[in-house]
Amino acid sequence: MQLHGIIPPVVTPLTPDFQVDEPALRRVLRHLLDGGVHGLFLLGSSSEVVFMDAPQRREVLRIAVDEVAGRVPLLAGVIDPTTDRVIAHARDAQAAGVDGLVVTAPFYTRTSQAEIVEHFRAVRQAVPLPIMAYDIPVCVHVKLERATLRQLRAQGLIEGLKDSSGDDTNFRLLALECQGDPDFRLFTGSELMVDTALMIGAHGCVPGLGNVDPAGYVALYDAARREDWREARHIQERLIRLFAIALQGTPRTSPNASGVGGFKTALRLLGLIPQHHMHRPNAPLNADETRRVEAILAAEGLLAHA
Amino acid sequence: MQLHGIIPPVVTPLTPDFQVDEPALRRVLRHLLDGGVHGLFLLGSSSEVVFMDAPQRREVLRIAVDEVAGRVPLLAGVIDPTTDRVIAHARDAQAAGVDGLVVTAPFYTRTSQAEIVEHFRAVRQAVPLPIMAYDIPVCVHVKLERATLRQLRAQGLIEGLKDSSGDDTNFRLLALECQGDPDFRLFTGSELMVDTALMIGAHGCVPGLGNVDPAGYVALYDAARREDWREARHIQERLIRLFAIALQGTPRTSPNASGVGGFKTALRLLGLIPQHHMHRPNAPLNADETRRVEAILAAEGLLAHA
Amino acid sequence: MQLHGIIPPVVTPLTPDFQVDEPALRRVLRHLLDGGVHGLFLLGSSSEVVFMDAPQRREVLRIAVDEVAGRVPLLAGVIDPTTDRVIAHARDAQAAGVDGLVVTAPFYTRTSQAEIVEHFRAVRQAVPLPIMAYDIPVCVHVKLERATLRQLRAQGLIEGLKDSSGDDTNFRLLALECQGDPDFRLFTGSELMVDTALMIGAHGCVPGLGNVDPAGYVALYDAARREDWREARHIQERLIRLFAIALQGTPRTSPNASGVGGFKTALRLLGLIPQHHMHRPNAPLNADETRRVEAILAAEGLLAHA
Amino acid sequence: MQLHGIIPPVVTPLTPDFQVDEPALRRVLRHLLDGGVHGLFLLGSSSEVVFMDAPQRREVLRIAVDEVAGRVPLLAGVIDPTTDRVIAHARDAQAAGVDGLVVTAPFYTRTSQAEIVEHFRAVRQAVPLPIMAYDIPVCVHVKLERATLRQLRAQGLIEGLKDSSGDDTNFRLLALECQGDPDFRLFTGSELMVDTALMIGAHGCVPGLGNVDPAGYVALYDAARREDWREARHIQERLIRLFAIALQGTPRTSPNASGVGGFKTALRLLGLIPQHHMHRPNAPLNADETRRVEAILAAEGLLAHA
Repeated sequence: MQLHGIIPPVVTPLTPDFQVDEPALRRVLRHLLDGGVHGLFLLGSSSEVVFMDAPQRREVLRIAVDEVAGRVPLLAGVIDPTTDRVIAHARDAQAAGVDGLVVTAPFYTRTSQAEIVEHFRAVRQAVPLPIMAYDIPVCVHVKLERATLRQLRAQGLIEGLKDSSGDDTNFRLLALECQGDPDFRLFTGSELMVDTALMIGAHGCVPGLGNVDPAGYVALYDAARREDWREARHIQERLIRLFAIALQGTPRTSPNASGVGGFKTALRLLGLIPQHHMHRPNAPLNADETRRVEAILAAEGLLAHA
Repeated sequence: MQLHGIIPPVVTPLTPDFQVDEPALRRVLRHLLDGGVHGLFLLGSSSEVVFMDAPQRREVLRIAVDEVAGRVPLLAGVIDPTTDRVIAHARDAQAAGVDGLVVTAPFYTRTSQAEIVEHFRAVRQAVPLPIMAYDIPVCVHVKLERATLRQLRAQGLIEGLKDSSGDDTNFRLLALECQGDPDFRLFTGSELMVDTALMIGAHGCVPGLGNVDPAGYVALYDAARREDWREARHIQERLIRLFAIALQGTPRTSPNASGVGGFKTALRLLGLIPQHHMHRPNAPLNADETRRVEAILAAEGLLAHA
Repeated sequence: MQLHGIIPPVVTPLTPDFQVDEPALRRVLRHLLDGGVHGLFLLGSSSEVVFMDAPQRREVLRIAVDEVAGRVPLLAGVIDPTTDRVIAHARDAQAAGVDGLVVTAPFYTRTSQAEIVEHFRAVRQAVPLPIMAYDIPVCVHVKLERATLRQLRAQGLIEGLKDSSGDDTNFRLLALECQGDPDFRLFTGSELMVDTALMIGAHGCVPGLGNVDPAGYVALYDAARREDWREARHIQERLIRLFAIALQGTPRTSPNASGVGGFKTALRLLGLIPQHHMHRPNAPLNADETRRVEAILAAEGLLAHA
Repeated sequence: MQLHGIIPPVVTPLTPDFQVDEPALRRVLRHLLDGGVHGLFLLGSSSEVVFMDAPQRREVLRIAVDEVAGRVPLLAGVIDPTTDRVIAHARDAQAAGVDGLVVTAPFYTRTSQAEIVEHFRAVRQAVPLPIMAYDIPVCVHVKLERATLRQLRAQGLIEGLKDSSGDDTNFRLLALECQGDPDFRLFTGSELMVDTALMIGAHGCVPGLGNVDPAGYVALYDAARREDWREARHIQERLIRLFAIALQGTPRTSPNASGVGGFKTALRLLGLIPQHHMHRPNAPLNADETRRVEAILAAEGLLAHA
C-alpha cells in the first residue's frame, strides 16, 4: 500500500429519508476522480460513518468499488467503539474489495496504550489487509502516542498513519523517525497545513475540503512534489480561504455539523448532490449560512454566479 | 418510573469464547436480588455494552427479563455513538420488556448541547419508554449541562438522571433545581460518595461495586433513609475500602479494565462466575492482582479464607 | 495549629486609587469576628493577593494583626510563582505576627510533584511557622496529588490542607487517609459543599462567601458539630442561593472578577466598605449587576430594603 | 520595532548562591552576538524570570544593555501575575534602556479576553515602549485568542507576537490575517518548526535552543530568506536532533527544569558558564543526564571530545 498524494475522505450524500443516495455518491466519486485524486477514503469521519449501521456502510463500499473500478486505491474506515465490532466492519470491507483499512483507537471505553496495541494486533490477525492507523483524539479522546506507533510499526501491525491530531510538531518528529522506513506512509488530516506537512516529510493528505475542490489539493500536491513551495503556499492560502465554508454553522451547530454540512452544502451548490442534510441529530446549514457558503465559493472562483 | 434506591449496573459474565454466559449471569442477577437491590441497570458501561453487538445485547436483556420476572424494575442502556443506532437498540430493549432506557449523549461525533436535546427528542419519539439521561463525560467527552437537563425536563423528554460526572457540586445544584419536581429522579453513579449524594437529595445510586456487595449498598441506603448519617458514613467508608478491588489493575491496564476486571474477579472469587476476563482489548487481572483482590475481599469480610 | 471551623479568606477593600482601605478593612474584620468565625485567612485568592506588591501585603497583615489582637488565629497566604519569592513573603508574614502560612504549588513554571515537595521543604526550613498547603489547580494548574500530600505530611512539612480543587471524592479519600492523624487539619475551599465536607471528615471551611455572611457559615458549622445534618443542609441550601451574588458578572467578566466583585459589592451594599472595585484589569460589577446582587441579598434576608 | 530573525531568550547563569553570574552572562551574550543573532530577549521564560525579584531582573537588564551596547535590539520580558506588577517591571525595563517589552496575559487569576485587552492597554499607557504580546498558554493557562490579538492590533496596543502556544494552524491563520500589516511582527517560540513557520509568514523565531547554537538558527533563517527550503529543512532537522539536550531530565524533573537545565548544562560543557543549576525548586541535571547531553553535543558537532 504505497499510498501517496491526495486521498479525500468522501462524504456520503443522503436521500430525504436518510438512505445512501447512490446516484449522488457516484457523482461525487466521479468529481473526485476527475479532480485527479490519488486515492479515496470511504467511511471516514466526514462520511458520517458512526451514524451508519453495517448495511449502510456496506452499501457505500459497494457503490465506491463499482464506480472507481480500480482506478485509484480505496481505503475503508472501520470505525466503531471496540475491537470485535471493528473486526466485523473490517470483514465487510474486505468482502467489498477495498485495498486497505483505516483503524482508530477504541472509544467510549478508556483504553491504555498497551491495550491499543492489542486492538490493532487483533484487527491485523483477523483481516489480511493493509492498515492505516487513524490518530483523531478530538473524536476518540486518546492520542496514538509516538511510542505506541513505534511499537505498531516495529511489530508490522500498521502500514501508515493518518494524523488528524493537529499536533504538527509531533507529526514532524514522527516523520523524522520514519525517514528510514520508506514503506511507512504518513498522511495529514489537516486541510490547512498541507504544504508544510509535505515539506517536512508527509506522503500526502486526507482533506475533507478535497470533496469540494479536489483539483486544488492535487495542484498543491504537484507543486510540493516539484518543490515549488511558493506556488504550494499560494494554493494553500486560497484553500484556507475556501475552508471558511466549513465554519458557517458554528456556534449554532456543532463543529462536525458545520464542517460536514459546509462540504455537503457546497456540493449541492456545485450541482453534485441534491440534498445537504446529515444524519440525526446534526443540524443542516440554514438559508443564511447557505448563502454565506455560496458567497465563499463564488469568491474563490468555484461558482460563476452569486 | 418512580425509581429509587440501589440499582447496580450489572456486569456481563462471558464464556471462554466471549459469549454471554447465561448461567453465570443468572447467578449474578439472583445475587443482586438476594442483596435487596431496588432495580437493575443492564447494559451500562460496567456491562461492557459498547463491546457487544445487537444480538449479544438482546441476549443479556432476554436473560434478565426472564430471571427477574418483574420483581424489580429493569433499565437498559442503549449506548452507541449516534441517534438512529441508539433508537435501534431502544426498540430491541422495548421488545425485550424492560421498564426504562438509559441514554447518553452521542459520542465520537462532537455534538452541541442543542443537538443533544434533539437526540433525546428523537429517542423519545421513537420509543415510548421512560428515559434516564446518563451523564458520563469520561466516556462521551461532553457534559450534559444543567441548562440542557433543564430543557430536557421541561420538554418532558427525560424522567431521571444518572450522574457519573464526578462533579458533586453540579449534582447538588441539580438536586436543588429539581426539588419542586418529585417525579424527576436523580441517581449518582459514584461508588464512593453515596451517603453525601443521598444527603443532598439523590434518590439513589448506580454503583458498579454493588455487583460485589449489593447488601452493603442496600444497608447504606436504608441508613440514609432513616437519616442515620453516622451509620451511613460508617458503611460508606467500608465500601470505599472495598472499592480498592477496582484499582489493582492500573497502571498496567486501563482504568476500565481495572474496574470491571476487579468486579469480575471478585465475583469469581465469590463463586458466582467461572471466568473474570473481558472483551478485547481489555486485559484481565493477572495472578498477582487477583491475589490482592482476594486479600481485600477477605479484609472486608466478604471472603472467609485468604 | 489545631485549626477548625469557619476561616473566611478576607477580601481587601481598596481606596479609589487602589490602595488598601484601612478603615474599611477593619470594618470587614470586625464584621467577621462579630459573625463568630474561628480564624481568618488573609492574602488568599479572594484578597486579590497576586495583584498586591510586598508593601501592600505587609499593610494588610499589619492591619489584621492589630485589629484582631489575638482573638482568633490568623493565616497569611504567601502566594507568588516560585520558592524564594514565597519565602520572602513568608518572612514578612512572620514579622507581621501571623499564626500560620498558606502555601500553593509554584505556578507559571511547570513543576513536578517531586519539585513541589522541595518547594514546601524550602519554605518550612526558611520560616518556622505552621503551613497549610493550598490545593487550587484552577489557579496554579497543577494538583497537589494525594501521594504528594502523604509525603509532605510524613516528612512533617505541612500541618493542614485547604482544598479548593472541587474534587470532593479525592478530598474524601484524603480525609480517610488522615483519620489516624488528628493533628492534620483538612479544610474545604468550597462555599457550596460545606455540610457534606464536614460530614466526611473536614475540620472546617474557608468560604469566600463567608465575607458576606459569616454568621451563616458559623451556624452551619455548629449544626454539623451537633450532627444535626437536616439543619446543616437547610442552612447550606440558603447559602447556595446567596452564592448567586458571585455569579452576576459572568460572562461579561472573568469568574474571578465576578466572584470577588460580587462579595465586594455585597459588602458595599451592607454598608461595610465604600467601594466595590478591584485591582486592574478586573472589571467591577456594573449597575445592573449590582441591582441583581442587591435583590439576592434582600431575598435571603441580609438586606431589609430592595 | 521592525524586528526579524533569530532572537534567543537568554538564559541567566547563576552563581553558587543563586545570584546573577555577571561574567558568565556576559560570555553568553557575546556567544549569541558572535553567532549572528538579530536581537535578544532578556527575562523570558527560559531566563527563569518568574524566579527572580525586581533587583535581580534589573541586574540582568543592566548587564545586557551594557554588554550589547546597541548592536542588536533588546527585548525585556515583564512577567508577573497582574497588571500593576507588570507595569512596575516595565518601568524598570524602560529605565534600563531596552528597546521593547514582552507581555503575557495575567496568570494565577483567571482573566477574560476582554480583561486581557485592558491589561495590555494599561501597560501601553504606563510605558511608551513597543510591546510584543507573548502567547504561552502552557504557563499562563489562557490563550491569546485570534479575536483578542485582532483587537490589540487594531487599537495599536501591540507591535508583535511571540507564539509559544504550539498551535501551528492558528499561527498560520494569524499570519494570513496580518499579511496586510507589514509592521506587525510574528515570531514563533518553537525550536522545532522554524522552517515551516518562516515559510508561512513568520518574521523570526525566539528559540531557547538558540542559547546553545545561535549560528545554527541564523543559518536556518538565512536559508529561509533565500527560499532555500531544502537547506532550511536540513538545518532544522539537525537542530531537532540537538534539541534532545532539553529532554534528558524528564520524567525525573519537570519539563521546565529539563529544558532550561539542558541548555545550561550544554553551555557549561561548551565552557561558557561555570554552573548549570537553576533556581529552587528546579532540580539540575544529574551526572548521568549530563553525560547524555555531552554525547548529543558531540554527535551534532558542537563538542570535539566525548
